[in-house]
Amino acid sequence: MSLIVQKFGGSSVADAEGVKRVARRIVDTKNAGNDVVVVVSAMGDTTDELLDLAGEVTSTIYPGRELDMLLTAGERISMAILAMAIHELGAKAQSFTGSQAGMITDGVHGAARLVEVNPDRIKESITEGNIAIVAGFQGINRETGDITTLGRGGSDTTAVALAAALNADVCEIYSDVDGVFTADPRVVSTAHKLDTVTSEEMLELAANGAKILHLRSVEYARRFNLKLHVRSSFSGLEGTVVIPTSSDELTPVNMKEIPLEQPLISGVAHDRSQAKITVVGVPDVPGSAAAVFGALSQADINLDMIVQNVPTDRPGVTDISLTLDQAQGQQALDALEAKREELGFSEVIYNEKVGKLSLVGAGMRSGSGVSFAFFDALSRAGVNVDMISTSEIRISVITDIDKLDDAVRAVHAAFGLDVEGEATVYGGTGR
Amino acid sequence: MSLIVQKFGGSSVADAEGVKRVARRIVDTKNAGNDVVVVVSAMGDTTDELLDLAGEVTSTIYPGRELDMLLTAGERISMAILAMAIHELGAKAQSFTGSQAGMITDGVHGAARLVEVNPDRIKESITEGNIAIVAGFQGINRETGDITTLGRGGSDTTAVALAAALNADVCEIYSDVDGVFTADPRVVSTAHKLDTVTSEEMLELAANGAKILHLRSVEYARRFNLKLHVRSSFSGLEGTVVIPTSSDELTPVNMKEIPLEQPLISGVAHDRSQAKITVVGVPDVPGSAAAVFGALSQADINLDMIVQNVPTDRPGVTDISLTLDQAQGQQALDALEAKREELGFSEVIYNEKVGKLSLVGAGMRSGSGVSFAFFDALSRAGVNVDMISTSEIRISVITDIDKLDDAVRAVHAAFGLDVEGEATVYGGTGR
Repeated sequence: MSLIVQKFGGSSVADAEGVKRVARRIVDTKNAGNDVVVVVSAMGDTTDELLDLAGEVTSTIYPGRELDMLLTAGERISMAILAMAIHELGAKAQSFTGSQAGMITDGVHGAARLVEVNPDRIKESITEGNIAIVAGFQGINRETGDITTLGRGGSDTTAVALAAALNADVCEIYSDVDGVFTADPRVVSTAHKLDTVTSEEMLELAANGAKILHLRSVEYARRFNLKLHVRSSFSGLEGTVVIPTSSDELTPVNMKEIPLEQPLISGVAHDRSQAKITVVGVPDVPGSAAAVFGALSQADINLDMIVQNVPTDRPGVTDISLTLDQAQGQQALDALEAKREELGFSEVIYNEKVGKLSLVGAGMRSGSGVSFAFFDALSRAGVNVDMISTSEIRISVITDIDKLDDAVRAVHAAFGLDVEGEATVYGGTGR
Repeated sequence: MSLIVQKFGGSSVADAEGVKRVARRIVDTKNAGNDVVVVVSAMGDTTDELLDLAGEVTSTIYPGRELDMLLTAGERISMAILAMAIHELGAKAQSFTGSQAGMITDGVHGAARLVEVNPDRIKESITEGNIAIVAGFQGINRETGDITTLGRGGSDTTAVALAAALNADVCEIYSDVDGVFTADPRVVSTAHKLDTVTSEEMLELAANGAKILHLRSVEYARRFNLKLHVRSSFSGLEGTVVIPTSSDELTPVNMKEIPLEQPLISGVAHDRSQAKITVVGVPDVPGSAAAVFGALSQADINLDMIVQNVPTDRPGVTDISLTLDQAQGQQALDALEAKREELGFSEVIYNEKVGKLSLVGAGMRSGSGVSFAFFDALSRAGVNVDMISTSEIRISVITDIDKLDDAVRAVHAAFGLDVEGEATVYGGTGR
């Protein structure tokens, strides 16, 4: 008998029909002889509707404690309705709030972090033959007894943390797409689903714009050596298995789960939510760049890519370019402006019309010629590269937003991802 | 400084405008120097909408545990939104679930009874200067940790129980009507608001069709000697004060709050939700009536009025008539039919086209001529009386449903209730 944790996102339980479809799948899993624990998000647009309601009574910032209390009503509804739909199919189900499921967090409302998971009541419930349904996204601050939320996408984290605490055999993450793709199918019509991907690759994909999994949940799964299965609640298809290892940590045990011809490149991610800031005319003296980053760090700005150029026509000064989330753009500009005299720069240029493209693949570590092929493809497609950053298994570039889709398609084709399976051929097999 | 508990029903917080209006009133009460604890119901039609959603996924009986989990989402939303609206006005507020507020109940889902109230967190919150907002209608079963509900109208009970536990000075029950009226103003245009009513009278009014207060909450308030103030959240008017005593228990202390010329009659209640069952041809031997009531009792039927007649044209048999809630009608018929042979009756007649009218007044105990005036008024209005029951301070009759409104108006007029104040004149002053 296996213990399976299944997580269903809001799109899977958007309406009564969706709830019934999901209930059917859960009961089928249970009837196949498994213990099943379900984590569910709020139905469809519930969270946005609750936020709208909050916006009607307050024009200022919401008190975080009360906003968390409000938003957690969404999962309370979906989990109770799902339990009822399961009962209707003749199986036993019990729903549990984050607090009842033992999801203990710190006290940061709206972005709480799990400090402990004590799923005693969940264990008891499944031992009694129930399907246990747990509210995603929420927890409780044990110090104060207040309700907290893990932030948007936090239901993935709930599912993975619970699966780890219960020592589950697999954590299945259901959504409205069939799995992890080599690129966003809305941009690249020839993108195809990956059967497996390592957690290391998944982390790079998630961090660089692939929205299918919450970054924290992938980190968590890797840390606890938990297998994730990303799949669709709308089809019966197998999805993508995220194997909790990096490709150079393969052991004889987990090796069996990875196809022998593991592709060199797993996919192309893109991100339209970034902005680029260029700080022009920073004095080219030791410590001046550090001062710029210090000012941004104090303002809690998360930077992504950073490039420093020394312009030859303006001796003694340098330009610093960086990217960040658009949502933090104004905050960053204010932080820089507040220290303009101290930092001594001449101008700040802000640009939201940028896109980020990332090529990710564990095989990049050993394969040769990847960089050349990557930039060659961009060049042939007429895409201008503005900034570059790399990791061991990723190359990312910033381009003009209008060129982003062309760039994604060009890179996807150049690495043979347009035809399933070919990706294993290109670039040699490495060592 | 006073401690005031204010309870707002769903109609008072039906939308964002309602929430803001209620928030203004709460903050005004706080700013006047009082400690304020608020109990709030789900917004407007939320409960019905959640029930509709449940109906979409299940055709059978809902599991009670899950239905309670579902419905309690309603107050979670309203209390968080109300707390935000209060913050917006510059005051401090914290919302608490039934569990957080220490509302401990038994395990009867859908109709739980309070077994203990431990409002430690509420006390702490108001000591810190907050307005504490508590979810009405809900509690927690301490044995299992499961969420429970007190049944429809249970928010009144939450408010009264909390007020008693906190030793509040008054519990204000806000709704969309101005207070307790001498009759339903939708039926009797000349009905007027009562300034005070004893809890004994309020119990009779609530039990006999006046929907303004939940019966349990009135019992609770009387037991804990708590003053209720029934008033409107839409006007600034004083409402009706329910004084926690019967009129023959007046002490020098509570006497001060009751007008010297306490009216003889406090009001006329009516109820359209009753049905009448007549069991025809029951053998007129000892124990036969008991057997009929035993069969109904075993089926958990709550009976209201009972009349037994011996028809002169059918010697040896008797007819038994009784009234009950229409919702239990089919259940009662099934229970009787199942024991037809054992009980030996010839026929059961079921009639939902009946109405119940009750005249209530503490002065009835001492005043003379009330019964005569009551039946005289009904007779003049052409109303046929089908069944009669009385208590020390109430006379109730069952009439044809089509005659009910006429009957209410006739009795209201006969006892001088049409003109405010005249009620003290009619029928003598008693002792």
